[in-house]
Amino acid sequence: MNTFFFPTSVMVIGVSTRPTNLGKEIARNLLEFGFTGEIHLVGTKGGVIFGRRIHSSVTEVTAPVDLALILTPARTVPGFLEECGKLGIKRVIIESGGFGELDESGRELGRTLIKIATEYNMRFMGPNCIGLMNSDNGLATPFITLRNVFRTGRVGTVAQSGGVALSFLNMFDGERIGYGKFAAIGNKLNVNENDFLEYYLNDPKLDAVCMYLESIQDGAKLMRLALSSDKPVIIFKANTVESGSAIARSHTEALANDDKIVDAAFKQAGIVRFNDMLRLMDFLKALQLPPMLGRRLAIVSRSGGHAVIAVDAASQAGFQLPPFGADFLSEVRGHLRGDVIRLGNPLDLGDLFDFEIYKQIVEHTLQEPDIDGILFLHIYFAAIESEASRALLAHIAALSRKYDKPVAMCVLTETQEMTELHKSLNFPIYVSPERAVFALAATVNQRETRSRLSEDPGPTPPTPEPQWDAVDAILERSLAEGRSPLLHEGLAMLESLGFQTPPSVFVQKGTATDVQPSFPGPYAVKVSAAALSHKSDAGGVILGVQEGSALTETIHALFAKFAASEIGLQGVLIQQMAIRSKGDFEFIVGAKHDPSFGPVIMLGHGGIFVESLGVTSLRVAPVSLDEIDRMIDDLQGSEMFKGVRGLPPIDREALKDAMNRIAWLMQRRPGVTSIEVNPLMVGEHGAVALDARVHVDCSAPPSRD
Amino acid sequence: MNTFFFPTSVMVIGVSTRPTNLGKEIARNLLEFGFTGEIHLVGTKGGVIFGRRIHSSVTEVTAPVDLALILTPARTVPGFLEECGKLGIKRVIIESGGFGELDESGRELGRTLIKIATEYNMRFMGPNCIGLMNSDNGLATPFITLRNVFRTGRVGTVAQSGGVALSFLNMFDGERIGYGKFAAIGNKLNVNENDFLEYYLNDPKLDAVCMYLESIQDGAKLMRLALSSDKPVIIFKANTVESGSAIARSHTEALANDDKIVDAAFKQAGIVRFNDMLRLMDFLKALQLPPMLGRRLAIVSRSGGHAVIAVDAASQAGFQLPPFGADFLSEVRGHLRGDVIRLGNPLDLGDLFDFEIYKQIVEHTLQEPDIDGILFLHIYFAAIESEASRALLAHIAALSRKYDKPVAMCVLTETQEMTELHKSLNFPIYVSPERAVFALAATVNQRETRSRLSEDPGPTPPTPEPQWDAVDAILERSLAEGRSPLLHEGLAMLESLGFQTPPSVFVQKGTATDVQPSFPGPYAVKVSAAALSHKSDAGGVILGVQEGSALTETIHALFAKFAASEIGLQGVLIQQMAIRSKGDFEFIVGAKHDPSFGPVIMLGHGGIFVESLGVTSLRVAPVSLDEIDRMIDDLQGSEMFKGVRGLPPIDREALKDAMNRIAWLMQRRPGVTSIEVNPLMVGEHGAVALDARVHVDCSAPPSRD
Repeated sequence: MNTFFFPTSVMVIGVSTRPTNLGKEIARNLLEFGFTGEIHLVGTKGGVIFGRRIHSSVTEVTAPVDLALILTPARTVPGFLEECGKLGIKRVIIESGGFGELDESGRELGRTLIKIATEYNMRFMGPNCIGLMNSDNGLATPFITLRNVFRTGRVGTVAQSGGVALSFLNMFDGERIGYGKFAAIGNKLNVNENDFLEYYLNDPKLDAVCMYLESIQDGAKLMRLALSSDKPVIIFKANTVESGSAIARSHTEALANDDKIVDAAFKQAGIVRFNDMLRLMDFLKALQLPPMLGRRLAIVSRSGGHAVIAVDAASQAGFQLPPFGADFLSEVRGHLRGDVIRLGNPLDLGDLFDFEIYKQIVEHTLQEPDIDGILFLHIYFAAIESEASRALLAHIAALSRKYDKPVAMCVLTETQEMTELHKSLNFPIYVSPERAVFALAATVNQRETRSRLSEDPGPTPPTPEPQWDAVDAILERSLAEGRSPLLHEGLAMLESLGFQTPPSVFVQKGTATDVQPSFPGPYAVKVSAAALSHKSDAGGVILGVQEGSALTETIHALFAKFAASEIGLQGVLIQQMAIRSKGDFEFIVGAKHDPSFGPVIMLGHGGIFVESLGVTSLRVAPVSLDEIDRMIDDLQGSEMFKGVRGLPPIDREALKDAMNRIAWLMQRRPGVTSIEVNPLMVGEHGAVALDARVHVDCSAPPSRD
Repeated sequence: MNTFFFPTSVMVIGVSTRPTNLGKEIARNLLEFGFTGEIHLVGTKGGVIFGRRIHSSVTEVTAPVDLALILTPARTVPGFLEECGKLGIKRVIIESGGFGELDESGRELGRTLIKIATEYNMRFMGPNCIGLMNSDNGLATPFITLRNVFRTGRVGTVAQSGGVALSFLNMFDGERIGYGKFAAIGNKLNVNENDFLEYYLNDPKLDAVCMYLESIQDGAKLMRLALSSDKPVIIFKANTVESGSAIARSHTEALANDDKIVDAAFKQAGIVRFNDMLRLMDFLKALQLPPMLGRRLAIVSRSGGHAVIAVDAASQAGFQLPPFGADFLSEVRGHLRGDVIRLGNPLDLGDLFDFEIYKQIVEHTLQEPDIDGILFLHIYFAAIESEASRALLAHIAALSRKYDKPVAMCVLTETQEMTELHKSLNFPIYVSPERAVFALAATVNQRETRSRLSEDPGPTPPTPEPQWDAVDAILERSLAEGRSPLLHEGLAMLESLGFQTPPSVFVQKGTATDVQPSFPGPYAVKVSAAALSHKSDAGGVILGVQEGSALTETIHALFAKFAASEIGLQGVLIQQMAIRSKGDFEFIVGAKHDPSFGPVIMLGHGGIFVESLGVTSLRVAPVSLDEIDRMIDDLQGSEMFKGVRGLPPIDREALKDAMNRIAWLMQRRPGVTSIEVNPLMVGEHGAVALDARVHVDCSAPPSRD
């Protein structure tokens, strides 16, 4: 990556003197931003521009080149890439469009690029991108004509869209946030977001990473990287809907990810997600403040109404508003002109007009040990208080830095004054109290999450260990037959995995139906068939069957009903009916392999009706038992598992163990593409799996340890 | 109200020449804004200011006065108010603080003000407010020094906080929204938000009403007013949390409302609620656009990434993106330089650099009959395209007006350019695509809601009619005994109201316990006691009791258990157990009297576990049967009531009838403060109430028809 950002010489391929030529705009930007390396221009028509010769071919450039930039018609790109390879150029940015984002032949062209890069051991960005900007050395490769006006600083950006990348620069500038490095990665056929993220996290000149992504190719690695560093990673993840997927695909060849999994994964990795650009900016601004180390907020406001709004927001954001000390309050009271406001936290300065007192109040508040941060709300009219207000705010900014506690400033004044204030004050300003509070809270959440994640003990192997041989035997048998395990096999697999299941016996199709199980009834009799996914909907489940002839008749009837159908009937499973107690809860515990993030485990409310509410809790495996615990807490209505209305709490350890075993299976046996235990009955003591559905990838053999 | 806004002469009481005097700032503002009426100044110390004499007493002013403004210490205000009354001044704005927002003696002062106003037939604003501004006649009463710089226009504002009211002016100005009339109402002891809302809705110079409220005194009237007009009513309702309530109280004497009821009521009245100032501004901006009459949106974007973000937002907001016509697309294709982008909706202009073509595309899109509105996203850098972009955007604004369809413009450019653009372009601009889309969607939602509400048929009386005599007999008996109806009385009341209940018999305490009901078992035996609200938690409910001696023993045991306790045991109710079928659902149907909004009815999932999820649906009565239908649909998981997994749908008409009867009771018998039917079992046929809890206001007799 370093060569991408710090080339000593670059070659721009696709430059001509035509007014509409975009290649020359790359060169113009390199000059405009004062790129510190050598620049070579190449274009088949030759000519002279910016006082430099345009070489008519790549081979004309004899000086060594670290980085080539290609902006030529798509079909010509493979040829130029190969020429670069032959010259020993190891880094290339392909800005041309017309690849996978356009059509199938473009996708084919893309595959050719990958082949050439592999052959010559090159790395390339794009295609269909605007490449890099580096505030350190003036590297600026976009083909959109820019002026060197953007604020530089310590935020690294990665964006899958050039337009969004450039709008980051504009928004940053408006909010006094500086960019350090900038990467617009387009179709990311070779170098992708993870490459840049890794580089940025190790870059001592960057404090935070801000990304815009339309697809995530290797979510598991993204999570590992984010977890490996203390730097905040902020992602605007778009392309969350079907139709959005179509445009994103035609835009940068992006495929949609399952958005709920993205949400869960980001939370687990401490990544801060936004789907609103202004809130993202609010957060980046809050990162410029000294860190808020707790949740005790003081609200000091010149407007009582805005204090009310701030309190609503603070409560929603999980802040506490501790009362001020008596000494502090009596001092403040001494400064009031009349005795017409009540003092407390929030502190309404409504009746106080002396800015010197404001400064003292803020300083005293920062000195209070029980206060972790301040929201300071200032409302003024420039006509009257412009100069004094600017001085006040600058003073408070200095106090915030001096005491190393955040003062989130919300300023309400005329637009024109706001613009001027923004120019004069090197400190974040918010324009509404709720925005300031939520941004501050997001930084606290981010730090708390990071610290919690850094103490996460990691996954714990289930004890006793699963009987892997038995599990594998079942998986291998179903693979051998090119199908997923059947109901009775799935339950048997769960048992080998360490689950409790009800006593059961399997009656093969074609055998005698007068079975008398060794365990007492009543029974649940369930059809086991390869192509029957909703047994009970199809009448393939009979509950409450009594012993003796009733059982025989039921088995007989099911065989008769399904033998002729095309569901691939294998037999029926006779299960002892579970005895339900009032405190029993039904859960769905499931898992599936996500192509980007790997195994994902799911917990949901079970039972025919509650299930319809669609309330679930997701995590990407591996997960610690602590995380599994939080997963249960995350489930809406989870309070009731602790015991409601005199009922005992559920056996939480048994539920956690069951979930852990599912997570374990998914990680150790990647051939299992999905599994669903539904229902898992959890009562006061233990958990019992009553039904299971397992899917395997029939195209790959299961991997044994 | 008209005299408040259009006084021909005003008197400012509390003016002095002291530099810190605030009364003179009121006078200064009246002069600054060019108030067209006469101004009289009063202050006990006399003197001269702004070239005018300060009268040392109210009675010195001999000219007739329409409106008096008082800003003197709280304790002196009643005296001045009375003097005004004696002079025949009918309208007063009391700006002084130190009333109910401060302490009990302040509240007492407030009551005195109300008494005086009643005596002299005066109306007053405040106290603790900054009063009015009227863009028509330069009336400007705030005591905060202002400059006459705010944009004037057609939005009326009402705010319970002066600070928020003034920040509305600032924000409006920044977004090119003009205020028409402005009212900061403070403690609203006499004139309140409804008075202003009513006046604004009838004011032909105002198109929309934007309010900030911390409390709602008469929510029922607020709803009626909002429903009476087509003008959009937008409310930022703050003070939603306990601690917020404390500060709001000390701020403007505001008491918190139940926020869920506020939410429900606003939806029913077509009021648009915001809790984020910037989103509120986004919405007001969208109201300046031609109306969007359907949900078919075209996205035309110069940045593919922002188009992806816009599509995500459009999908979330319920917009459709219809495909463009083939003719249209082939014409666009003819303008493209290379064939490197796919054409569709969203339309990515990425490869098109000719602004003339942009104009044509937008005009053609506006002409498409299948398109109701456009999101136009323009990204540019001022250094290169400033002049052309401004012309382009002005042209598109004109096109939007010409075709009377909205073009929500999202512009991404440098901050400085944005400020300039804002000045030059008289058309709303958004700074992020998601904001533009959500604002546009909010206007469509608002119009759709209004139109639906205007067609609402109103409430339907239940048939057969409730047996009011029987209902009233129960209510009167419990009132006579100074308690709420007991379990068996509540159920009997439901029966008289028209509910189905299971067969039951009540066994009075002290009578024989060897009861043999005339209906077969098994039975539910429930304790009926005045002070036992959670019968089952206390062991006061025994289910599944068989006929004969088991029943006798159960009754005996319950009497023995509860006779000595202080719950006020009255007897036990023997209920036939309901026979549950698989398709039966349990609901909670309840209602309560809200002091501000009146009767509120509630539907929730019943059953011990689902109930814990806390999912409910609320409406303020009266409600039409259509609205009751939507109430059922609003309940999370309501899909399952339509039949899931082969089960029949529930008897929706029976559920609606039950809810309607509860709503009817609450409206016709205001003495009933709350009622809860839990559970109401609803199956394929009919609905049965199994338990009921009724509370009555023992301080007032029930009103009979």
